[in-house]
Amino acid sequence: MRNLFWLMAGMLMLAAARAEAAPETVVSPSGALRFTLDTDPDGRPVWSLAREGGAVVNPSRLGFILGDAPKLERNFEIVEVARHSADSRWEQPWGERRFVTDRHNELVVTLREKTPLKRLLRLRVRLFDDGLGFRIEFPQQPNLTTARIVEELTEFDLAQPGTAWWIPGGEWNRYEYLYNRTPIEGVGQAHTPITFRTDAGLHLSIHEAALVDYAGMWLRRVEGQRFKARLSPSGTGPSVVRDLPFATPWRVMLVAPDAAKLYAASDIILNLNEPSKLPDIGTWFRPHKYVGVWWEMHLETASWATGPKLGATTANTRRYIDFAAANGFRSVLVEGWNPGWDGDWFATGHDFDFTRPTPYFDLQGLSSYARGKGVRIMGHHETAGNIRVYEAQLGAALDLYQRLGVDSVKTGYVADAGGILAPDGSYQWHDGQVMSRHHLKVVEEAAKRRIAVNPHEPIKDTGLRRTWPNWVAREGARGMEYNAWGNPKNPPAHEVNLIFTRMLSGPMDYTPGILSLTGKGGAPIPSTMARQLALYVLLYSPIQMAADLPENYARHPGPFRFIKDVPADWEQTEMLAGEVGAFALIARKDRHSRDWYVGGGTDESPREAELPLAFLDKGRRYEAQIYADGPTADYRTEGRADIAITKRIVTSADRIPIRMGAGGGVAIRFRAL
Amino acid sequence: MRNLFWLMAGMLMLAAARAEAAPETVVSPSGALRFTLDTDPDGRPVWSLAREGGAVVNPSRLGFILGDAPKLERNFEIVEVARHSADSRWEQPWGERRFVTDRHNELVVTLREKTPLKRLLRLRVRLFDDGLGFRIEFPQQPNLTTARIVEELTEFDLAQPGTAWWIPGGEWNRYEYLYNRTPIEGVGQAHTPITFRTDAGLHLSIHEAALVDYAGMWLRRVEGQRFKARLSPSGTGPSVVRDLPFATPWRVMLVAPDAAKLYAASDIILNLNEPSKLPDIGTWFRPHKYVGVWWEMHLETASWATGPKLGATTANTRRYIDFAAANGFRSVLVEGWNPGWDGDWFATGHDFDFTRPTPYFDLQGLSSYARGKGVRIMGHHETAGNIRVYEAQLGAALDLYQRLGVDSVKTGYVADAGGILAPDGSYQWHDGQVMSRHHLKVVEEAAKRRIAVNPHEPIKDTGLRRTWPNWVAREGARGMEYNAWGNPKNPPAHEVNLIFTRMLSGPMDYTPGILSLTGKGGAPIPSTMARQLALYVLLYSPIQMAADLPENYARHPGPFRFIKDVPADWEQTEMLAGEVGAFALIARKDRHSRDWYVGGGTDESPREAELPLAFLDKGRRYEAQIYADGPTADYRTEGRADIAITKRIVTSADRIPIRMGAGGGVAIRFRAL
Repeated sequence: MRNLFWLMAGMLMLAAARAEAAPETVVSPSGALRFTLDTDPDGRPVWSLAREGGAVVNPSRLGFILGDAPKLERNFEIVEVARHSADSRWEQPWGERRFVTDRHNELVVTLREKTPLKRLLRLRVRLFDDGLGFRIEFPQQPNLTTARIVEELTEFDLAQPGTAWWIPGGEWNRYEYLYNRTPIEGVGQAHTPITFRTDAGLHLSIHEAALVDYAGMWLRRVEGQRFKARLSPSGTGPSVVRDLPFATPWRVMLVAPDAAKLYAASDIILNLNEPSKLPDIGTWFRPHKYVGVWWEMHLETASWATGPKLGATTANTRRYIDFAAANGFRSVLVEGWNPGWDGDWFATGHDFDFTRPTPYFDLQGLSSYARGKGVRIMGHHETAGNIRVYEAQLGAALDLYQRLGVDSVKTGYVADAGGILAPDGSYQWHDGQVMSRHHLKVVEEAAKRRIAVNPHEPIKDTGLRRTWPNWVAREGARGMEYNAWGNPKNPPAHEVNLIFTRMLSGPMDYTPGILSLTGKGGAPIPSTMARQLALYVLLYSPIQMAADLPENYARHPGPFRFIKDVPADWEQTEMLAGEVGAFALIARKDRHSRDWYVGGGTDESPREAELPLAFLDKGRRYEAQIYADGPTADYRTEGRADIAITKRIVTSADRIPIRMGAGGGVAIRFRAL
Repeated sequence: MRNLFWLMAGMLMLAAARAEAAPETVVSPSGALRFTLDTDPDGRPVWSLAREGGAVVNPSRLGFILGDAPKLERNFEIVEVARHSADSRWEQPWGERRFVTDRHNELVVTLREKTPLKRLLRLRVRLFDDGLGFRIEFPQQPNLTTARIVEELTEFDLAQPGTAWWIPGGEWNRYEYLYNRTPIEGVGQAHTPITFRTDAGLHLSIHEAALVDYAGMWLRRVEGQRFKARLSPSGTGPSVVRDLPFATPWRVMLVAPDAAKLYAASDIILNLNEPSKLPDIGTWFRPHKYVGVWWEMHLETASWATGPKLGATTANTRRYIDFAAANGFRSVLVEGWNPGWDGDWFATGHDFDFTRPTPYFDLQGLSSYARGKGVRIMGHHETAGNIRVYEAQLGAALDLYQRLGVDSVKTGYVADAGGILAPDGSYQWHDGQVMSRHHLKVVEEAAKRRIAVNPHEPIKDTGLRRTWPNWVAREGARGMEYNAWGNPKNPPAHEVNLIFTRMLSGPMDYTPGILSLTGKGGAPIPSTMARQLALYVLLYSPIQMAADLPENYARHPGPFRFIKDVPADWEQTEMLAGEVGAFALIARKDRHSRDWYVGGGTDESPREAELPLAFLDKGRRYEAQIYADGPTADYRTEGRADIAITKRIVTSADRIPIRMGAGGGVAIRFRAL
């Protein structure tokens, strides 16, 4: 959070008018990456990227189409250049690692039109050893006061053939898809993060950072391996309308020699965000685990709607509070607590009431009851996409929660039927400029009241948790509920795909831990028991749900032990081994003890390995509590419940044999002795 | 033009409220094609297409995202169904064939939302034996008065794997690209027409018909082989804003067992357009050939700008008029005749003056001089995309031409620098709703003055020449000028690709006939001499330019003979043989004599064949005047100029050996004896 070490920063190395038309370059601190900005013969700015001399991105255009002014695309010349370097380390209030290193070289190039308008664009690029971010700044200037951006022309022309892992962008207006794995030339229009592996083994991911007051970027393939930004549309006009000065979000590309280093490179997204605006967050938000009245609705044994099956009753909630208190879970989510769920709540313009409970839910009494047991109610605001109604009630709704000690809220934006209904009556996308503003508004209003926010059907994560660390998690991918009722359910490869795509962007509230291994009507979940435990380590979130029913946990005390033990906040994180879409083994050290945890997961193939424990603290002995797939464990058979729980004493010099069954996993707690 | 035979039309076969939820189907007249409309469990309308029992299009969605109302996408039920049949033949005033057959079965399905808004959509599909068109009608209704369409959700999920020929859609804001040939799964976002050949050999093309007051449709591949409409954007708001009632353009799919039948199937696009609004067009427009002050500018031996190299001088134009009169060309195009070309005319908001000539061009005198020789000046209106200025001057500019007897005008929309500048000050795409209106406005204003229109950098052709037959041709693809200065120039496959893609949409002013076979600085053109002749038959237009310099034609009197002979209006057209992107042999019968013509062209591969002459009129003798590639003809070598001109007497029972060199072609006139 705070910048601990500013070794060198803001060193202006060159800021002079320049005459010649030579390209401008910047290299990363180690020299591995080289970024070049040039102008083509028509004066179009083009950027390119090389790694160790080999082309990664061919010359790729930059520019904008405006709705009320000539496009910003050609006739530019470079008129000013500046360079800076930074090498710093900052502390996160919570995260996958306590300290994040920010080491980059920066190039700032000011471009001016040679035509009479003489409009200005400024490119700011930060080059790290494992990736880059660049943004276009629109400086204050006489001939452009408001930018109405219809299209952003930023391109990424990938130089090497390879494979892509991606979900379609701009389709169903959310991010809930299984991943496509295709040749790069088979991508259509994708959401970011999108991950690539070149045939030579280089790992790339394109995403964005600090999506603030701007439309989300989709990536559409033009032809060959050339991608171009497409901005999420607006229902009312250009995708983005901004008064100058302003800057686009950072366009980010991670560049790593293997999948594990790609995973680590995602710190770049945090580094490109502004420092925290909530210096005291540590006093009111701590990572934790929670339970909730939720899975039973997805099983359809309970309902959100009032009636005989209503889940959000006082009695049922009390049962969850008791369960949470007995097992060390901090919070209890209750969906369906407020009026609005009866009838077709998917319908457009549906109104929820966020300021009072149903008659069946004693909000005040339950809050007190919970706090008496050291537990909190987790709030819930399903908007059905009607942010007009939600924003009107937002202050009062959050005030209510603050009064009651409800210090986290899950929000929801299911808007399948009509789209997002904005305050001005327009209909909007989940990831357009309107929603980028809305989500930050909710986060800011919540922060004022010391409430943490966890949106479902959200806008994508672009690292804003650094700036607003009360934005603790979100959904934004196909989560566990698809294993309740999905057709298909989440195949084993899905969670492995998530690790190398969606999870590069930030925490996900995946809601793991379904130890019953069954969904609606008892249909089996394509997972082993050990895999459900491994997910707590594999899919990072500072709030982790134990999503199954209390009675199911009661039936599986052995595996449940791991869910109770595993923390949600980490001192360090290291991917020990992994291949995109195939498997991953991740080690994380608890931030509040000396314990380490390992989670492993595989796709549909069983895998065996010897796990070297070199990541453990040297010279320390640990009790390894190993939750492994048993000999018959297989996501396709009854063997999926076969789990082998063993213990052994180890040190960092040891190796542990690992075996993951088909669709399986492994979870290990290394308890420091 | 007139409907000659209405054998059966408007027969209402069923128009009753229906209760059950069964899918509605319609079969084509022969029964070959079957179209099905259904609603999925969420009430989304989905259509599919089968041919002889095999799936061609998998269930594909329909719907719209609106900017100010809930999306029209689900919760629909079918409430009304009607069926009609038509079998008619109508006469074209000019075209590839005199009579066009329109034989289809029609299904009209009214869908109504089950939600309280109860909004209505009506699908009208016309099923031919070689393709279909469907459009969505927005009937007058209480809960939707103005549609602000942000996205059209029409999908085409192709059922069979195959190959696609396509150019990127929505890129450089025009259509001037070389074609990509990729697997269907390799398409990004494409303009239409886009052509497919399935691995089983079925030929498909997707396009649209009657693009009136709506945004042009791009096709973007979502994933797999599923394509979705993307409407050309607007600089000001939703892609389309229309008051109800209205209908979308027809979404067209041609379906044929081979490439030649695909070519013939394109009549569907004409059939889906409204009949002519200009019944007297035959009295004031006749297809013809023209020459012009044009190629020398692309060679940069003359200039559009005033100065020593100005091409549009009175003296130079007089030279072209003399040449046209001496060789039977009806019109002389002169670019650069008006003020506005000096300085950077590509610059945004550039103003041309359309109502007066430069001092160097005696418009009045030249018009009289030309008419005295039976020749007309062809007008020229380059707008540089500034339609604000153009529309302000349009009436006066066309009045001027009408006064002078200038009865055709080439318009231009080079707008590279800034985009199209609309009358309201907004910036727009070449194929958005604003331009769909603009082009029809120009065509209508021109029609009032009996002037034919030929836009370059146009909106795409969607068959509106049927309704407005003074819209005689357009560019809308990479034309001959790229052989003057392009890098690369048009490779031989390009023109063959055009035949099976761009040309399915309608006439193109490709401007063939460069007998010098050289571009700027004497650089060779990738074509043989015979190929330049063949283009007059291969690439249909009712106005065909002899684009080379008069002095070059003087040097090649043998081949030039064919250019003088070949007509621009046809009684019949038949593709004798062809493969998409490889080669084509097309026979056409002169509409005003008994002569037949054949044009053949190949890609980079030489080809030989025996050409059966069964298309010729039975029992008639012809002198075949054969312009063939000579033995050394090859587009890559000096042999490109090697042409063999021979004559022989033939009948329909004969066969002629054909040999086309690499990048070559063949042109034959069959002069009826």
